[in-house]
Amino acid sequence: MDELRTVADLVADHLDGIAGRPVWRPMPGEERAWLTGQELPETGRPLDELLADTREHILPYPMGNGHPRFFGWVNPPPNRAGVLVEPLAAAFNPSCAGGDHAGPHLERTVVRWLAELTGFPHPPGGGLLTSGASMATVICLAAARQRAAAADGWDVRRDGLSGRAPMVLYVTGEGHSCLHKAAELLGLGARHVRTVPVDEAYRMDVAALRRMIAEDLDAGLRPFCVAGSAGTVNSGAVDPLDQIADVAASYGIWFHVDGAYGALGVLAGEAAPHYRGLDRADSLALDPHKWLGVPVGCGCALLRDPGAARAAFSLVPSYLVDDNAGDLGWFAEYGPEQTRPFRALKTWATLSHLGRRGVKDLVEHTSGLARTLAAMVEAAPDFELLAPVTTSITAFRHIPCAGRPTGRPTERPTEGPTEGLDALNRAIPYAVQARGNAFITGTRLGGRDALRACFLHPDTTEADLAVLLEEIRLAAKDL
Amino acid sequence: MDELRTVADLVADHLDGIAGRPVWRPMPGEERAWLTGQELPETGRPLDELLADTREHILPYPMGNGHPRFFGWVNPPPNRAGVLVEPLAAAFNPSCAGGDHAGPHLERTVVRWLAELTGFPHPPGGGLLTSGASMATVICLAAARQRAAAADGWDVRRDGLSGRAPMVLYVTGEGHSCLHKAAELLGLGARHVRTVPVDEAYRMDVAALRRMIAEDLDAGLRPFCVAGSAGTVNSGAVDPLDQIADVAASYGIWFHVDGAYGALGVLAGEAAPHYRGLDRADSLALDPHKWLGVPVGCGCALLRDPGAARAAFSLVPSYLVDDNAGDLGWFAEYGPEQTRPFRALKTWATLSHLGRRGVKDLVEHTSGLARTLAAMVEAAPDFELLAPVTTSITAFRHIPCAGRPTGRPTERPTEGPTEGLDALNRAIPYAVQARGNAFITGTRLGGRDALRACFLHPDTTEADLAVLLEEIRLAAKDL
Ligand SMILES: Cc1ncc(COP(=O)(O)O)c(C=O)c1O
Ligand SMILES: Cc1ncc(COP(=O)(O)O)c(C=O)c1O
Repeated sequence: MDELRTVADLVADHLDGIAGRPVWRPMPGEERAWLTGQELPETGRPLDELLADTREHILPYPMGNGHPRFFGWVNPPPNRAGVLVEPLAAAFNPSCAGGDHAGPHLERTVVRWLAELTGFPHPPGGGLLTSGASMATVICLAAARQRAAAADGWDVRRDGLSGRAPMVLYVTGEGHSCLHKAAELLGLGARHVRTVPVDEAYRMDVAALRRMIAEDLDAGLRPFCVAGSAGTVNSGAVDPLDQIADVAASYGIWFHVDGAYGALGVLAGEAAPHYRGLDRADSLALDPHKWLGVPVGCGCALLRDPGAARAAFSLVPSYLVDDNAGDLGWFAEYGPEQTRPFRALKTWATLSHLGRRGVKDLVEHTSGLARTLAAMVEAAPDFELLAPVTTSITAFRHIPCAGRPTGRPTERPTEGPTEGLDALNRAIPYAVQARGNAFITGTRLGGRDALRACFLHPDTTEADLAVLLEEIRLAAKDL
Repeated sequence: MDELRTVADLVADHLDGIAGRPVWRPMPGEERAWLTGQELPETGRPLDELLADTREHILPYPMGNGHPRFFGWVNPPPNRAGVLVEPLAAAFNPSCAGGDHAGPHLERTVVRWLAELTGFPHPPGGGLLTSGASMATVICLAAARQRAAAADGWDVRRDGLSGRAPMVLYVTGEGHSCLHKAAELLGLGARHVRTVPVDEAYRMDVAALRRMIAEDLDAGLRPFCVAGSAGTVNSGAVDPLDQIADVAASYGIWFHVDGAYGALGVLAGEAAPHYRGLDRADSLALDPHKWLGVPVGCGCALLRDPGAARAAFSLVPSYLVDDNAGDLGWFAEYGPEQTRPFRALKTWATLSHLGRRGVKDLVEHTSGLARTLAAMVEAAPDFELLAPVTTSITAFRHIPCAGRPTGRPTERPTEGPTEGLDALNRAIPYAVQARGNAFITGTRLGGRDALRACFLHPDTTEADLAVLLEEIRLAAKDL
């Protein structure tokens, strides 16, 4: 496969050239038409033609997340070790459903490493890799649902939810939509997902949680799970995990932690105290394809009692019975996927290449950038910080007709009518993106339209932060 | 990244050397210990060390499916074009949740091509790639559940299943376990998955289906979906899709087709008539990582009414609102995954490299091998064919103390006591696998332990079939 050498050059060109190209640019109409309009060829096309197409029509139109000034959503650049081993994983091409070959065995190590890094108790077989945290969340909540039913003396897999008291999930308004999607998929109903209020730092109000659970119990409902966030997508907030664990324990309900983005934040010295109680969770969803930079897709579900996931999913038909599977059985017994890609290889390579220290350095560097941006925002008359920084996300907004003196740290965001500011800040992200020099996304936070910058790229510098603020000013001026 | 050139060599060595190595071998204890016992290094390790580890400890222990004499489960060798573009996808590293970049646009084309190949009606936005058919099945059944509730005037996402009549799914005993897992995940309950009987060719008995639906309606249950198989994993049987479509239409229930393995079988001239009615399905799950050989994981859900999937899954939080998304919105609105890997690139490359003719040739070549093996089995005194061949799977068993004369085609498998034969045929797969010259797996079929060989490798020859039968004889002798 000489073409792989061409690929090597293409990859190197792409990665090395990123910082010199626009972060992102809209697809030109004719290129979009090329991508969406192609016809399946009647006879096969040679590999070199396909590579030429990729170079010309695909690589020039990235999402942007390889660039050091990409601050959108939660999408990192790929770690080079992860990129490097992808063709080996594809050439090897196992299904990591289970069995006695390198894939499943390596997955056990990688899952253990992720548990060790986050301080999550790691029983044998205590987790599995998934396509992302959304699927990890489905697995964790299915395990929680299974356990709750079993505690009440029934089997939800066998009987289904019909005719049973509704199960209730508790999560703040800052909790990720994947928790809602999982609850809906599981047949619980959005009506039974309670929005627990947050404090001024967007952390769960635990007294309110306790009250809501008690009310639902009184109403004959079945509280089954509380999901805390270890790093919300809007502001990077970490819920008071230890207190949530107390509540979960006192009511005997499952404690899930969504650490998709932020679980590794525990490695940053300053942030670590915020994570107290993480190790008391029943399950933790985290995303190697986020902060670690493992190439997409790679999520992970960690479980204190892996048997709960196995009870929720194990179904071994005769053509899959494996008498040599050992105590832990197959990975496919712990989740919905049968055929499972070799996600462990890129995760192993990334973690091995970074080492524990490299992971910690990455987390601290990017968290530091978020704090620095927060300080710059606070010092600027035309920006306003909207939330404290705990992890590597800075939530703020642009207030061009500045209402407050330079340098005074805002304890609470500006109150009062903000429709004009809302509209402006809602329009800024796309306007910044279209300029091509930085990429930022927006959200709603505390009833206001906000900008948020998420730092995940090891090469981002403080100079890039100044560029970001300037780009926002310039984009806003044109609006 | 000079290391990518090392990778290119490693990949070439691995692929080129496969046919000369054992198909599979058990992991030596010390190698398994190396894989499962490693410690996360404190400081990062250089890339060349990681590649040396991969060469020494991982690549020698494959699942086996790269080899032309691997006939287990449904796992093909990887298409080289798919392998080739993997590092580009990883270096590019988009999330194909949606947005205006190359990934999502290319996915539209690939999904359309898969629909065109299988003759499935392709409305705009009519499908999406998934990690595999298990997840595609979850999406399709969730869409079916959503539509059934809506038809009855309620919203299952909002209200959940509690307090509603149980929804019932119909599938034969030959239907894949992922259908059961999906029904359980959705909260329907295994009790509400009906096992429709099969005829002597392991195809759904449609009269029985009709009867069972009527009975469930009488009992106050809510039939919501019938799942036909286009290629069962045990024998490659294709259910009478056209007749199932009639029943589904007459009761107004969703018609899902599991074509994970077999949907592309429609391209083989001889088999095509068996697929009549496939184009009448409401949804079709198929797996590019099966017959096509796209590197794992890549499944696909095709939907006649994509709006049903969007109704079941779309949840766009403020930080993801995209005013430029267009009518079809984001892919993430059609399934549970938020971050989505760039599965389209390897699928596009594989399909482009094969072309329509190449796909058809592959399907016909491998289907031909299954028929040839069936003929060899029928001609041999010590083997017995257990099911007709429709796709590329041959189900048979070894009967060393042959009870029937050579050359007489069996209309029906041998009747009578078969405990000894069952035990023997249950033991054969692992015994064959351990010899390293061929790889076969077993199953239960019609109450008997069976061997099944699945053909997916373009390089498998008729000579390999003779080796397989001889390996079975030799392995059986040692048992
Ligand atoms: C806090 C949080 N939770 C969950 C998710 C979902 O993870 P994924 O996109 O990997 O499914 C994300 C990211 O999208 C996230 O930021
Ligand atoms: C007939 C059939 N349906 C569904 C599946 C599930 O597909 P996947 O393993 O891609 O999830 C398989 C294969 O495992 C299969 O052979």
